[in-house]
Amino acid sequence: MAYTIGLDYGSNSLRSIVVRCSDGMEVGSSVFEYPSGEQGILLDPSDHNLARQHPGDYIAGLESATRHAIAEAGQSDNEFSPKKVIGIGVDSTGSSPIPVDASNQALAMLPDFQGRLAAECWLWKDHTSAEEAATITELGREHRPQYLAKCGNTYSSEWFWSKIWHCLKVDSEVFEAAYSWVELCDWIPAVLAGLTDPKDVKRGVCAAGHKAFYADEWGGLPDKEFLTMLDPKLAELRDRLYEKAYDASEKAGELCPEWAERLGLPEGIVIAIGEFDVHYGAVGAGVDEGTLIKVIGTSTCDCAVVRADKKVTDIPGICGIVKGAILPGYYGIEAGQSAVGDIFAWFVNSVCKGDADTHASLTAEADKLAPGESGLLALDWNNGNRTILVDPLLGGLLLGQTLHTTQSEIYRTLIEATAFGARMILERIEEYGVPVSRVVCAGGIAEKNPMLMQIYADITGREMLVSGSSQTCALGSAVSAAVLAGSSIGGYDDFETAQTKITRLKDASFKPNPAAQATYNELFKLYKELHDAFGGVSEGDMGGVMKKLLSIKERARSIDS
Amino acid sequence: MAYTIGLDYGSNSLRSIVVRCSDGMEVGSSVFEYPSGEQGILLDPSDHNLARQHPGDYIAGLESATRHAIAEAGQSDNEFSPKKVIGIGVDSTGSSPIPVDASNQALAMLPDFQGRLAAECWLWKDHTSAEEAATITELGREHRPQYLAKCGNTYSSEWFWSKIWHCLKVDSEVFEAAYSWVELCDWIPAVLAGLTDPKDVKRGVCAAGHKAFYADEWGGLPDKEFLTMLDPKLAELRDRLYEKAYDASEKAGELCPEWAERLGLPEGIVIAIGEFDVHYGAVGAGVDEGTLIKVIGTSTCDCAVVRADKKVTDIPGICGIVKGAILPGYYGIEAGQSAVGDIFAWFVNSVCKGDADTHASLTAEADKLAPGESGLLALDWNNGNRTILVDPLLGGLLLGQTLHTTQSEIYRTLIEATAFGARMILERIEEYGVPVSRVVCAGGIAEKNPMLMQIYADITGREMLVSGSSQTCALGSAVSAAVLAGSSIGGYDDFETAQTKITRLKDASFKPNPAAQATYNELFKLYKELHDAFGGVSEGDMGGVMKKLLSIKERARSIDS
Repeated sequence: MAYTIGLDYGSNSLRSIVVRCSDGMEVGSSVFEYPSGEQGILLDPSDHNLARQHPGDYIAGLESATRHAIAEAGQSDNEFSPKKVIGIGVDSTGSSPIPVDASNQALAMLPDFQGRLAAECWLWKDHTSAEEAATITELGREHRPQYLAKCGNTYSSEWFWSKIWHCLKVDSEVFEAAYSWVELCDWIPAVLAGLTDPKDVKRGVCAAGHKAFYADEWGGLPDKEFLTMLDPKLAELRDRLYEKAYDASEKAGELCPEWAERLGLPEGIVIAIGEFDVHYGAVGAGVDEGTLIKVIGTSTCDCAVVRADKKVTDIPGICGIVKGAILPGYYGIEAGQSAVGDIFAWFVNSVCKGDADTHASLTAEADKLAPGESGLLALDWNNGNRTILVDPLLGGLLLGQTLHTTQSEIYRTLIEATAFGARMILERIEEYGVPVSRVVCAGGIAEKNPMLMQIYADITGREMLVSGSSQTCALGSAVSAAVLAGSSIGGYDDFETAQTKITRLKDASFKPNPAAQATYNELFKLYKELHDAFGGVSEGDMGGVMKKLLSIKERARSIDS
Repeated sequence: MAYTIGLDYGSNSLRSIVVRCSDGMEVGSSVFEYPSGEQGILLDPSDHNLARQHPGDYIAGLESATRHAIAEAGQSDNEFSPKKVIGIGVDSTGSSPIPVDASNQALAMLPDFQGRLAAECWLWKDHTSAEEAATITELGREHRPQYLAKCGNTYSSEWFWSKIWHCLKVDSEVFEAAYSWVELCDWIPAVLAGLTDPKDVKRGVCAAGHKAFYADEWGGLPDKEFLTMLDPKLAELRDRLYEKAYDASEKAGELCPEWAERLGLPEGIVIAIGEFDVHYGAVGAGVDEGTLIKVIGTSTCDCAVVRADKKVTDIPGICGIVKGAILPGYYGIEAGQSAVGDIFAWFVNSVCKGDADTHASLTAEADKLAPGESGLLALDWNNGNRTILVDPLLGGLLLGQTLHTTQSEIYRTLIEATAFGARMILERIEEYGVPVSRVVCAGGIAEKNPMLMQIYADITGREMLVSGSSQTCALGSAVSAAVLAGSSIGGYDDFETAQTKITRLKDASFKPNPAAQATYNELFKLYKELHDAFGGVSEGDMGGVMKKLLSIKERARSIDS
């Protein structure tokens, strides 16, 4: 009997799970809520775009959550012993770069930089660097179109170079003090491996390729000439970052004595290369060629893989196509929506001033509504649009409200808006040759909200399968560690076998209802008109939108009554 | 000492006031809430467009409110005696037509039609006849452009012929049973005068001219040839309506013995011709050439007058320009917004699930926000757009929301949206030659919400004066009765003198703040782009709207901090 550990650093908390290699049974798990800021996020009331996290929370959680998960495994499984753990895998949100000193210490954990926002981890959803992203996009289009082609032709304010450049502009002291910058998903494995030189940190190609313009075909990170166009100091920084990034066939290191003791685990066990949460989430949900994985949470990520021996065209508006980013030997394709659960939470908490019960009651009421019955339509852009517009400088839109519009109608409309956004992504990747014969959903919302899942099925016209694990990301990390450990000590020799044994689907799935689908096809046309007009894709004639919504509403109500 | 009584039939209640002629002092007043339906309005849950009222409520309130007001006058003013009352004026919402039998009985008050929605009063905001309105507009444009020119080139579902035609289509039994149809503002004076033949009912030119295509220049109501194009039965009905409509220089009748006894007032005193609430409201707020009166309540009406010897061009999108509709000897010009207070009430009650305290707390919070700071923009179309688009088939729109948008930001944005709508009207009438050197506001919102008034001043760039009476409509009705009664018995011989003596302004007014005005000018440009695009006026490029809102927001926040 062998066990593998998966660690998932999410937006508000860290989850640690202990997985039995033979059958994927999750025998222990624990969640650690980040204690700093608001739900773990450091905010600036004067700038809604700012979102940081304290690296000290990550370290505190690493020890606490892992020990708790191990303790639970000991209680739930008589066979379990910490000595039987053969590896640890780590995933995190991203791009979430952390400024570190020459000994790989996070600056924010040093006394000199306590409480300094620029010294903290720049959380994925930090949008303070919109200007920098725009300039990088502009210069990239002119001088390095090949860089931009890999990330949907628009560089995002959520990404590595935008954030570091913005730090240089707003807090040069922090920038100067940072010997290097390390993505959270690379930093935790390095901490576990006891690496004290940023140059020794094994960087995952997932973060590097998707967010830092890294590709083997142009020699790694962007060349110095290009970085100098941004700022000569960024070109200097390049030497202190990394030459090579790795896929999951490489290990990040081996568990160091200090952390072996802190966690109560064997020294020297393998630490898997770090990947972003959704990428390992895709692995944990059983990704293969033809399967789109949707991890639906506060935001959404969509992942697919295409064999590396095929020619994959660049797909406009898709955040990234990176070889090895998800599975070794495959192109990893990543898309996503900047806010999904976050939009529902905003509506319930900030607009309705409700709580968890409100979500439940609104869901029950919204479930009684027929498609189109509310006469409402929304754009799901409260946090910008990641795919396919790659534009953080957008806002939400709600349209068609009358004097009788109810909370539950708005709630359902916001869910529908995110489903329309999901359909935009699905259609875009299929249009560019990525096969999608199966959709598997994972994440809290996919598991807990059958109404939302049915709406997603009706709007996309696809059956929605649901992952059997509620910790798909952590599970995928654990799978990666089990593969690196190998079959000789109770792991596996390849991802396909490991996924077959460890991952699973729920029995229940959600199939499209043809009548609902027909109405939603009409509404999707209107959504697309709004999307393209407000997204600056085309001019569009808005004059008919409200009239068409009203006629769909009238028909829905006459059928309903 | 003489006294005059004003009766104001509003959307939810009836107000009765007793006014001292010498100085306009309101010595007695009383409010009667209509007991039927929801806040006095009969609704149909399956059709949001339906809004009716029970005529029995009007009669019950007529007696109750007037007796209470008279009793209060007796207590507050030692000089008062019911014998000193020299006249009664009546105003009401409209177009609110009532089907009546051959003895001027409201059908809904007869046992045969109890509870039959088509037999009730068709309240102004009933929008069930959108199709009929569209057909009338279409046929009118082709065959009788002169009719349409008088009402902004679009006939509304809120108006007389649309409603009656819709009744014919959906409940022909009621249509057949109706000997005639009488506007509420004409029906109450007829009841007070004891008129039992609909043909004897003196119809006011205000309702007739604004809502029923009546004009002396084409011989009264629309000709039978035109009505036959709609339905031959409407042409037949024409004979049972009226030949002539009157301005306020005519009386509607004299108080009949029955009602003299029921109210405890002298028999034979003058009953003024009925007008719509806002028209008499304009009189009560001191309307004259150059003064725009805005009655701001659940919806808004804007009134102006231009001397009848001048040439007034038809103004596109303005609901009506009717000679004598407000003051004898003047063109009355009426515009309006379909929902104002109703939008704030919807947001607070239906979205926030709040109460009156919520209005107060949201107002306090919203007051702290700088123009543009929320990054939000809205269209005030939750109940359609009366002026200048004359289109009930429109809906609301809210744009620019983030994950941090608060209730109070939305609340302020909705107020701003109604102010932008107000500015559209103001600019349109000025553009077509109606002078506006003064703006006087009346109605509950104008009196009670200084934040809203300041926003209106900042957005329109005009000083907002406030009427000194909180019962401007009832006061204007009372003025009209005092003028009809004449100076020989304690009234007045003309409106100008009566208005000078009876009406007044509050001392405090609201002046535009130049900095706020500048920001609002930028936001107004964006409002206009949305307005024209979604209103079908022009195609427009929506691609820049969110970006511009964000840059205004950023600037507002940097100034604010």
